[in-house]
Amino acid sequence: MSSSNVILLYDIPGNVAGKAWSPNTWKTRYALNYKGLPYKTIWVEYPDIAQVCKEIGATPTSTKEDGSPYFTLPAIYDPSTNTALSESARIARYLDKTYPGTPVLIPPETDAFHAAFQEALQRLVLQNISPLMLPPTCLQLNPPSYVYFRETRERMYGKKLEEFTPVGPIRDEHWQKVQDGYSRMSSWLTADGKDKLFFMGDKICYADISIAGWTVWMKLVLGPDSAEWAAIKAWDGGRWSRFMEHFEKYEFVDE
Amino acid sequence: MSSSNVILLYDIPGNVAGKAWSPNTWKTRYALNYKGLPYKTIWVEYPDIAQVCKEIGATPTSTKEDGSPYFTLPAIYDPSTNTALSESARIARYLDKTYPGTPVLIPPETDAFHAAFQEALQRLVLQNISPLMLPPTCLQLNPPSYVYFRETRERMYGKKLEEFTPVGPIRDEHWQKVQDGYSRMSSWLTADGKDKLFFMGDKICYADISIAGWTVWMKLVLGPDSAEWAAIKAWDGGRWSRFMEHFEKYEFVDE
Repeated sequence: MSSSNVILLYDIPGNVAGKAWSPNTWKTRYALNYKGLPYKTIWVEYPDIAQVCKEIGATPTSTKEDGSPYFTLPAIYDPSTNTALSESARIARYLDKTYPGTPVLIPPETDAFHAAFQEALQRLVLQNISPLMLPPTCLQLNPPSYVYFRETRERMYGKKLEEFTPVGPIRDEHWQKVQDGYSRMSSWLTADGKDKLFFMGDKICYADISIAGWTVWMKLVLGPDSAEWAAIKAWDGGRWSRFMEHFEKYEFVDE
Repeated sequence: MSSSNVILLYDIPGNVAGKAWSPNTWKTRYALNYKGLPYKTIWVEYPDIAQVCKEIGATPTSTKEDGSPYFTLPAIYDPSTNTALSESARIARYLDKTYPGTPVLIPPETDAFHAAFQEALQRLVLQNISPLMLPPTCLQLNPPSYVYFRETRERMYGKKLEEFTPVGPIRDEHWQKVQDGYSRMSSWLTADGKDKLFFMGDKICYADISIAGWTVWMKLVLGPDSAEWAAIKAWDGGRWSRFMEHFEKYEFVDE
């Protein structure tokens, strides 16, 4: 789709199939594909993200340690409302409000629950997944992003990417914690004695899309044929394999 | 109410007004009062909890470090279905299912969200509130519970109750973290730009009751006239004061 009136989705290219690898931009891509909203992907290398966000008018999502604004993707520009927005949950709320005829991502009565869920997800999964996933993520970036990503992440962690999770007990422990986090989420989905695939039951909501975003990152960057992805698919009796199968129809990249 | 056919709620007595002080049993009491279900409170001192649970057939809620079963309150016995149950969230689900004509605590489409919320609440608030609240809680217990509570909590923390949070910087830091946790919950309630008092908007659900249970613990044990409670009421622009006002009509003890 390349109509001049479609939403522009700003994303970071990599060398995985389809180019799109970022968990956070996948959340917005899944959201757009799930809603059936046409869009066009604009590829932005890491060193250009701040400039591009400023140009379209997308606000920074946080502040760096030195106090300067921190711009991140995903961002969208929607020509039909002349709106630029960053941060995947804000974008989801905007899409729900602006396109009421499309499937709802965050039903209003679940909005506070969605925010609480993000907090729980952050603490359970993300802090363990990042040290495992940042090194292979860096390796599949294009040269300008590779240099930027390596420098910023190594400064953040105070060590070389190769030292984040070398093969051995520390790496194994991180994987165990990620697996434990997914098991905990599995326990939420069965807390009432029913075996729900999605948070609200049969229908996908933004909590599911968030999990799918983090999970597709592992699938694409580790590789769908990797031993690690095969292990993940077997976690919790194959729950996450079944879960991700449902997202396959939304796993495409409109350029 | 003392009809022979009402639900029995097993609770731990203290010397606060109304006797009921426990955050977890308050969750079930709020739930019963909110649903308008008649019940009778059975007061159980700490050393007797395991025996009473075994007698009515309420299962342990976890396992002690030595591998033996750990029985906790709240527990209920419902003569109309001959059911004994422990653990406040399980009881809430049971009440929703068994009494469908009453206000719903956990709407099915929010069940997984409620479980995720509990995880976030646990990590944000409870781990900081306990070291502050256990010492004054112990002081208002009756002698048999006082001895039991002091022994078990001191073993758990490896220090005397008086050393948990002595007046000074460590205590201040704990209070700051509890306040930060409440502020974080406040941010969830305003994430969509609306200023919701309750998780689902206007109607109380079990997430709200959980927060109210922990909050009423502070109010009753620190004292409604204490400087600490006055400070809590001012957090987040008075949000939690307004929040707890709505729970006052459910804050009674049927004996």
